[in-house]
Amino acid sequence: MGKSGRRAYGLDEVAIVPSRRTRDPADVSLTWEIDAYTFDLPLMASPMDTVVSPSTAAELGRLGALGVLNLEGIWTRHEDADERLEDLAGRPDEEVLDLLRKLYREPVKPGLIAERVRQIRAAGAVTCGAVSPQRTMALADEIVAAELDMLVIHGTVVSAEHVSKSAEAEPLNLKTFVRTLDLPVIVGGCTSYQAALHLMRTGAAGVLVGAGSGRTSSTGRVLGIGSAQATAIADARAARMRHLDETGVYVQVIADGGMASGGDIAKAIVCGADAIMLGSPLAAASEAPGRGRHWGMATVHAELPRATSVRVGTTGSLAEILLGPAEDDAGGQNLFGALRRTMALCGYGTLKEFQKAELIVTPAADRRLGRR
Amino acid sequence: MGKSGRRAYGLDEVAIVPSRRTRDPADVSLTWEIDAYTFDLPLMASPMDTVVSPSTAAELGRLGALGVLNLEGIWTRHEDADERLEDLAGRPDEEVLDLLRKLYREPVKPGLIAERVRQIRAAGAVTCGAVSPQRTMALADEIVAAELDMLVIHGTVVSAEHVSKSAEAEPLNLKTFVRTLDLPVIVGGCTSYQAALHLMRTGAAGVLVGAGSGRTSSTGRVLGIGSAQATAIADARAARMRHLDETGVYVQVIADGGMASGGDIAKAIVCGADAIMLGSPLAAASEAPGRGRHWGMATVHAELPRATSVRVGTTGSLAEILLGPAEDDAGGQNLFGALRRTMALCGYGTLKEFQKAELIVTPAADRRLGRR
Amino acid sequence: MGKSGRRAYGLDEVAIVPSRRTRDPADVSLTWEIDAYTFDLPLMASPMDTVVSPSTAAELGRLGALGVLNLEGIWTRHEDADERLEDLAGRPDEEVLDLLRKLYREPVKPGLIAERVRQIRAAGAVTCGAVSPQRTMALADEIVAAELDMLVIHGTVVSAEHVSKSAEAEPLNLKTFVRTLDLPVIVGGCTSYQAALHLMRTGAAGVLVGAGSGRTSSTGRVLGIGSAQATAIADARAARMRHLDETGVYVQVIADGGMASGGDIAKAIVCGADAIMLGSPLAAASEAPGRGRHWGMATVHAELPRATSVRVGTTGSLAEILLGPAEDDAGGQNLFGALRRTMALCGYGTLKEFQKAELIVTPAADRRLGRR
Amino acid sequence: MGKSGRRAYGLDEVAIVPSRRTRDPADVSLTWEIDAYTFDLPLMASPMDTVVSPSTAAELGRLGALGVLNLEGIWTRHEDADERLEDLAGRPDEEVLDLLRKLYREPVKPGLIAERVRQIRAAGAVTCGAVSPQRTMALADEIVAAELDMLVIHGTVVSAEHVSKSAEAEPLNLKTFVRTLDLPVIVGGCTSYQAALHLMRTGAAGVLVGAGSGRTSSTGRVLGIGSAQATAIADARAARMRHLDETGVYVQVIADGGMASGGDIAKAIVCGADAIMLGSPLAAASEAPGRGRHWGMATVHAELPRATSVRVGTTGSLAEILLGPAEDDAGGQNLFGALRRTMALCGYGTLKEFQKAELIVTPAADRRLGRR
Repeated sequence: MGKSGRRAYGLDEVAIVPSRRTRDPADVSLTWEIDAYTFDLPLMASPMDTVVSPSTAAELGRLGALGVLNLEGIWTRHEDADERLEDLAGRPDEEVLDLLRKLYREPVKPGLIAERVRQIRAAGAVTCGAVSPQRTMALADEIVAAELDMLVIHGTVVSAEHVSKSAEAEPLNLKTFVRTLDLPVIVGGCTSYQAALHLMRTGAAGVLVGAGSGRTSSTGRVLGIGSAQATAIADARAARMRHLDETGVYVQVIADGGMASGGDIAKAIVCGADAIMLGSPLAAASEAPGRGRHWGMATVHAELPRATSVRVGTTGSLAEILLGPAEDDAGGQNLFGALRRTMALCGYGTLKEFQKAELIVTPAADRRLGRR
Repeated sequence: MGKSGRRAYGLDEVAIVPSRRTRDPADVSLTWEIDAYTFDLPLMASPMDTVVSPSTAAELGRLGALGVLNLEGIWTRHEDADERLEDLAGRPDEEVLDLLRKLYREPVKPGLIAERVRQIRAAGAVTCGAVSPQRTMALADEIVAAELDMLVIHGTVVSAEHVSKSAEAEPLNLKTFVRTLDLPVIVGGCTSYQAALHLMRTGAAGVLVGAGSGRTSSTGRVLGIGSAQATAIADARAARMRHLDETGVYVQVIADGGMASGGDIAKAIVCGADAIMLGSPLAAASEAPGRGRHWGMATVHAELPRATSVRVGTTGSLAEILLGPAEDDAGGQNLFGALRRTMALCGYGTLKEFQKAELIVTPAADRRLGRR
Repeated sequence: MGKSGRRAYGLDEVAIVPSRRTRDPADVSLTWEIDAYTFDLPLMASPMDTVVSPSTAAELGRLGALGVLNLEGIWTRHEDADERLEDLAGRPDEEVLDLLRKLYREPVKPGLIAERVRQIRAAGAVTCGAVSPQRTMALADEIVAAELDMLVIHGTVVSAEHVSKSAEAEPLNLKTFVRTLDLPVIVGGCTSYQAALHLMRTGAAGVLVGAGSGRTSSTGRVLGIGSAQATAIADARAARMRHLDETGVYVQVIADGGMASGGDIAKAIVCGADAIMLGSPLAAASEAPGRGRHWGMATVHAELPRATSVRVGTTGSLAEILLGPAEDDAGGQNLFGALRRTMALCGYGTLKEFQKAELIVTPAADRRLGRR
Repeated sequence: MGKSGRRAYGLDEVAIVPSRRTRDPADVSLTWEIDAYTFDLPLMASPMDTVVSPSTAAELGRLGALGVLNLEGIWTRHEDADERLEDLAGRPDEEVLDLLRKLYREPVKPGLIAERVRQIRAAGAVTCGAVSPQRTMALADEIVAAELDMLVIHGTVVSAEHVSKSAEAEPLNLKTFVRTLDLPVIVGGCTSYQAALHLMRTGAAGVLVGAGSGRTSSTGRVLGIGSAQATAIADARAARMRHLDETGVYVQVIADGGMASGGDIAKAIVCGADAIMLGSPLAAASEAPGRGRHWGMATVHAELPRATSVRVGTTGSLAEILLGPAEDDAGGQNLFGALRRTMALCGYGTLKEFQKAELIVTPAADRRLGRR
């Protein structure tokens, strides 16, 4: 009586309904365009140290996707990051958390951001890095100096309007900052129509939808904040339509976190995503810098950890995970071959068309339909 | 906001409500008529190599049902199919997938389709075979030569309108093809009103409802495509009514996959099915060619497997599974004795009448009501 | 589209909301009146051979409840029923089903019905026996001769109108039969408004609500027939109101099966039940004839078993199970002490008043609220 | 048909939606005011003997919270309560229940209430004790003599109007009693709008919302009474608004039980709670008198136990549990640091503002969002 809430749906509660047409998989295009860049796959790799290193960013670029390097992570705190991660890989689980905390206590090294970006650019890939809103102003000069192609401002929740009474730290004014920069900026997470709309109004080229929905996250339990991804993406799509109507500018909606199979990716697109950001499925690549382990920055938070370190194992090479062939029917390989096939079976030729596909709501759809 | 989806229900979410009448089981008829053929049971056996061989097709015919032979499976690729399956039966689980892939790499042998059909006809059973839409045109001459009584065109999703820009392969035009043939054709799967309606308009005698809903399938996880069978069948029923109203032709709705007990079958009928297609429950017959193992064509897909090979064991003879007596209360035996009894307890004498029975929606009905 | 179903709720999906009053437990009355009989507790014990023997019927009478003897069970088929059950108790699980089948193949002995009823009457208890609708006519003379106080006509589904073309067996015409007898008759199960209403119109003193909802039953899985008890009881309550309005006769609604705790019993009353019928909770009494095992007639069905034989163990004496004190908080003891306390906490003094209490719908209420 | 019930939601079915603003955690205030008292944290510790002793009440006061001493528990029945609890801690699980029963059979000692209250006051903390409505009148003189700062009248269900025909015991008239006392009184539990409103009308300073929703409770299973906390709190909020409108008096709504993480606490506030009462999370403190075990008065009920004795272990000091830092991401530490962070991420500066945050309804939200 005193409060009401909208029913919101997760990706595991929806399923795609084929239309009355089918199509040849060979006729399906997965091309994704953002600003001046075109990618073969609608995929950003999550700015997590277990997913994107300079070398996996290069490989992702080769495969048609965009790797986003964490500019506040191990790669910019340690010149010998690869050796540190190799060392970590050999340690037993019980030592990992302490070692991680030690690794992240080291400050970000001046110049190392530019160096890492240079490594990626040298491999011919589009360069993209991510910073947290808290550190954006402090790292602004380094970011500019690195001459990134694209920037991601990334947090559990990023808002267009940050309120602070503290005189010490200069708070990030997204609206000013984004327009100052001379490169496309992607910001998020957000989980609602209003939040997405206001992020779009900062001039961002794209918004990330989701809040702690990834595999390592315990944001829901610890903070009570949650995103039901199917609804959150659909709300961001509505914000995109309104913003387009108001300004003529089409802002990319990028679903972030909580997708583990080609089916999840397809559903995110149908809900309204233009592209997706993946973490744990790529942390399971044979090239992944986490070497079978996966964690996030929230894992090592000093006062309130909100993520775990998990073992994700190795399911195949990045190429196999993205483009196949799949060895088994577990759904973790050939993610974009699966997306292509779903689009073909449902009769759609482009991602933009596929966003029109019909959805049904079914309880625990994946569990019931996929694992009988 | 940016997207909406209808709530759709699975068979495990509905339960049948008895009416105010009951009836003698002896007075219940399970007769099913399609085109010129009449069957004692409203049952098609799934065109899977673990379910239908020429000899089980004969036995199914003897029991009053219709066995559908996979015309692109082991039986038409290997003259010594039975020996191959016998050999497979003795192998450990870890060798099975590789062996299966090898067996299905062999091409379909010219003439072997006609030979297998002849074996079934010789046993006095109605002959029915299944092809995939991709191979239908290539096998068209073989199919005609085999003089089948009935043909099934079967895929995860089959549409009335397949779009292809490829010049190489001649795409199947269902509308033309179905009307060219001189025999009744059943096509599917489909999961929506529109898709079912357009399949009916091709001139098909029946449509299969379902998409990857069988026990071996992981279509939902891998592709995100799902059918909530209770709703999908009810939608196809609505399409049947519209098509009947528009054309005067009654097209059979056949529920395909995901039914494991007499209760599931009864619910499918009440939702609107005229008949059902069963796979895994029949793969557990002592006569089943899979000899206790069960797989589908999707299990051996080269790039994107969407099904597993599962051990289903042996629960009884085909006669016991269909007509009883049941040894225990697990629901896997005497499937049609159970259907007959349900119809009697609910007071209905024919399948057509039973489609009028009342349903309730309850969460996870089977789990709650059946396994206390 | 082609079919619609009402959402129906189970007892585990509802919870009772306390009102703005509370009351002394000492001021709460659990008295139940049916026809000329008054009971201290609104309880019928289920006509199952593992629950009601002549001696437990006597003990139930002493405790204020009504034991219903199965007139087609072991007690009327075997003079030495107790010895047979004692023998069974010592056998390993794997022998039980075969032995049970043998025990129930023996025909009902002429005169033994009257003898068993005499034993109960001799102990001073109200006598009540149950027959299946299939056997009612055949046993009619025996029933009359036994001079029962009350009769239950009991099946998975019992209807007011049984249709049969068979000339052999004389079908039971409930309307005629009930009015012929000179004793109150209780009939069921039924699960819908229409079915309950028509059973009330036969002249029955009470109707049993439920269909295969007991612990041993697999009716839902095998037959697809289900009752969501909260809704089924509420529907029968609506039928009771209509019948009362039409005829001035108040017919008792008795919830049958699927209740395992004082909470379940309280919810059934609030949904509209005047009394309840318990099986498995009483099969766990130290006096229970099943001696820790529990089965139903459906367990030994020759062609389509729809129930299992389960081990229920022993949780206390009948007196402890019904009236306490409870040893632990598992909810299986002091069932009616719990009902009394719930009524007190909610501020109601009689069962009839308690039927007015407010309910909320919560998913899997018991699981979430009771077992944290 | 014959009954209807409102859909009610638990805290695990809702999630908080961030707004379009964020805020510095340093700018967030968790201050809670009730009557003349101000607390740094909106927290009452549950009046359970495993949670609040005189010394933990002192420590809770030091940390900014309010410890509520059970005035009918071990601390007022035994002068050497601490030794008794120490002894209990060393006993094996199977002896605990009997020992507890023995401890609670001892009567409350005259003068010991005042003595315990004096110990808490001496430590500088606000003094608060709890009595059951059944014993309130009998202990009234002792309560007055103890000169408590605040009183809690606490039961599974407490109503403004208790009906009793018994001449022996003088029933508690809450309306009279509350207004007689010269100190603020908090009463509950209650779970509905009507019940909360009538409790507010007694002149209480606060009402406790919940009924048997704590971790040890089996009220739902045993009694069928349930509170879906999210809805119950929202209903009490509506009652608070109506009462404020009618009288100008703002009555505190305190969510009681069933919260295990910072996320749960945040959701309770957003639903409308002004403060919360915690039991089991505090029983896991290293200072907790239960020393790793946790039980309630209902655990030792003579006739109908409605709670268990559970091992909760030790997750940290009271200071760590309330204010951090957290060692892991399990959510059981730094509960109010998490609340502060959630409020910051959602852009709210005070608890009263945070009550305006948006909620979504998602099935089993915590399970899905927090534990992937």
